[in-house]
Amino acid sequence: MSGSSAALPPHGGDLAAATARWGRPEAGWLDLSTGINPQPYPLPPLTEADWSRLPGHEAEQALLAAARRAFAAPEPVRLVAASGGQALIQHLPWLRRPGPVTILSPTYAEHGRAWDAAGHAVRRAADPAGADPAGVLVVVNPNNPDGRRLAPAQLVELAGRFAAAGGLVVVDEAFADPTPDLSLIPLAPAGAVVLRSFGKFYGRAGLRLGLLATVEAGLAEALAARLGPWAVSGPALAVGAAAYGDAAWAEATRHRLAADAARLAARLTAAGFAPVGGTDLFRLVAHPRAAEWWERLGRQGILVRAFADRPDWLRFGLPGDAAGWARLERALVG
Amino acid sequence: MSGSSAALPPHGGDLAAATARWGRPEAGWLDLSTGINPQPYPLPPLTEADWSRLPGHEAEQALLAAARRAFAAPEPVRLVAASGGQALIQHLPWLRRPGPVTILSPTYAEHGRAWDAAGHAVRRAADPAGADPAGVLVVVNPNNPDGRRLAPAQLVELAGRFAAAGGLVVVDEAFADPTPDLSLIPLAPAGAVVLRSFGKFYGRAGLRLGLLATVEAGLAEALAARLGPWAVSGPALAVGAAAYGDAAWAEATRHRLAADAARLAARLTAAGFAPVGGTDLFRLVAHPRAAEWWERLGRQGILVRAFADRPDWLRFGLPGDAAGWARLERALVG
Repeated sequence: MSGSSAALPPHGGDLAAATARWGRPEAGWLDLSTGINPQPYPLPPLTEADWSRLPGHEAEQALLAAARRAFAAPEPVRLVAASGGQALIQHLPWLRRPGPVTILSPTYAEHGRAWDAAGHAVRRAADPAGADPAGVLVVVNPNNPDGRRLAPAQLVELAGRFAAAGGLVVVDEAFADPTPDLSLIPLAPAGAVVLRSFGKFYGRAGLRLGLLATVEAGLAEALAARLGPWAVSGPALAVGAAAYGDAAWAEATRHRLAADAARLAARLTAAGFAPVGGTDLFRLVAHPRAAEWWERLGRQGILVRAFADRPDWLRFGLPGDAAGWARLERALVG
Repeated sequence: MSGSSAALPPHGGDLAAATARWGRPEAGWLDLSTGINPQPYPLPPLTEADWSRLPGHEAEQALLAAARRAFAAPEPVRLVAASGGQALIQHLPWLRRPGPVTILSPTYAEHGRAWDAAGHAVRRAADPAGADPAGVLVVVNPNNPDGRRLAPAQLVELAGRFAAAGGLVVVDEAFADPTPDLSLIPLAPAGAVVLRSFGKFYGRAGLRLGLLATVEAGLAEALAARLGPWAVSGPALAVGAAAYGDAAWAEATRHRLAADAARLAARLTAAGFAPVGGTDLFRLVAHPRAAEWWERLGRQGILVRAFADRPDWLRFGLPGDAAGWARLERALVG
């Protein structure tokens, strides 16, 4: 059991590593190692131009307008699109002079890695209280993996304090689509940037689309200049515009995800896992023999997310169909 | 005629600007303002996973292996994929301490803009002779827009001189696919990085895929770290792997483009344009009344590329079908 954590891949979704460890399962992998919606937004018809032409200004504006409505972003909020939320995480630390950065932890490791790489003094803390307001505070809200939530009102207060001191609050809302009331975007505070991921809630992580929302115009312009022209593919612009424009699908999906997440939580509790937290796209649970469970599930072709520094934790994403649910439920009672 | 250049968009392919100027043509735009192959690589079937999963290591390796064969890149050459050649142009200047940068000019304007933005001392020169070998030399080969070519042997010599002084030669081969003998990649010299664009020769500019090739391992690793994980979309990995793996299509396309470029050159000469240069994806011509021609063609729904600082130049891409050729030929004799 110990020693296995050395082989843990740093991210979910790594089926190559899973196959190297356990072989290719007869029934294929049931990949529950990410927080990606397994019932994705249906692809709209794409035109030849989406694939062939340089992505045009009109297509980008259509995406941004649809995202603005989906995020309930008021007029002063600038939106900038990039080829994935990760691309935004990569660029952001280079837009500020190196300084103190507090990352509300534990959380998605790429934030710390990116600010470190850009020469900032990164400090990981469980609480925003000690963060230097002249620096940067990074909050994933709701948090990955434990679902910790900060109320928008608290984030507005923090952003105000950071803005007054020349600092910046970065709120990663990669998993906020199921709970729009949690989003900071409608409140449009100064001193904050919000990151959104298209791939998770809409189930299209392969497409690479992420958006940044902020009223800090200088920051939005600096980011756009860093990204340069044609930063987002034609298919991503077209699919993103259709999906963000489809409020009915989003609403139905929120209900389905909530039901599925509740079902998953119940099954995990029944199997002896202690709930830690999560969102409607994944559940985090604790178990004294988590590593054993990870191995046992892996051998049955079910990949879940383990954590090198928290060997008692496992994160489960949602099965996408009846067969996936049946496999998981069999494995959990087995 | 004068004054019109103030309205020139900075890039080709801007149909929104063209429509704002001339209205939407009845027969649709015949867009000859880019150097994108109008007969694109046929899309292979994409899987649900290409769209939905985080792009995996295996898919990226498949793309890189196919590109390695297509580029005839020997083993020591590292390949790094990004979401478009432009993304590489954006990142590269930040990987070096600010210093002297010589850009062989006139050329694609985004190079100068990107090195400027990163604080380098940019100098534009018609000749590499005066370039500081401790700095950076940027060569687009073959050049856009005038098709100027540097022999690979000369670039190897330059790269050696720059490598010895701690400098770097950047060779943008965005338009080199029609003329593989011109590529520096098979020679794998130290002190050089080569940029390749997928969208132009393969006619899939909407997909956003570009590659960097270099034996400078530290630079390749620094770039990969800047890009972060999942930098290229699943569809781009899949289409790119199929296309780069299809040597027969590439060979047939080279022959077709050569024939089409010759036909275009002949029509332009017959219409009184003086040939300046080009590649098999576009032709650059001069005319004392170039601005008048640009207007006249635009009013007929044919968009070609004009240049604010060279009002006597026009660049023509290739029509993609018989109807397009007929429209162009009619307009040129009209």
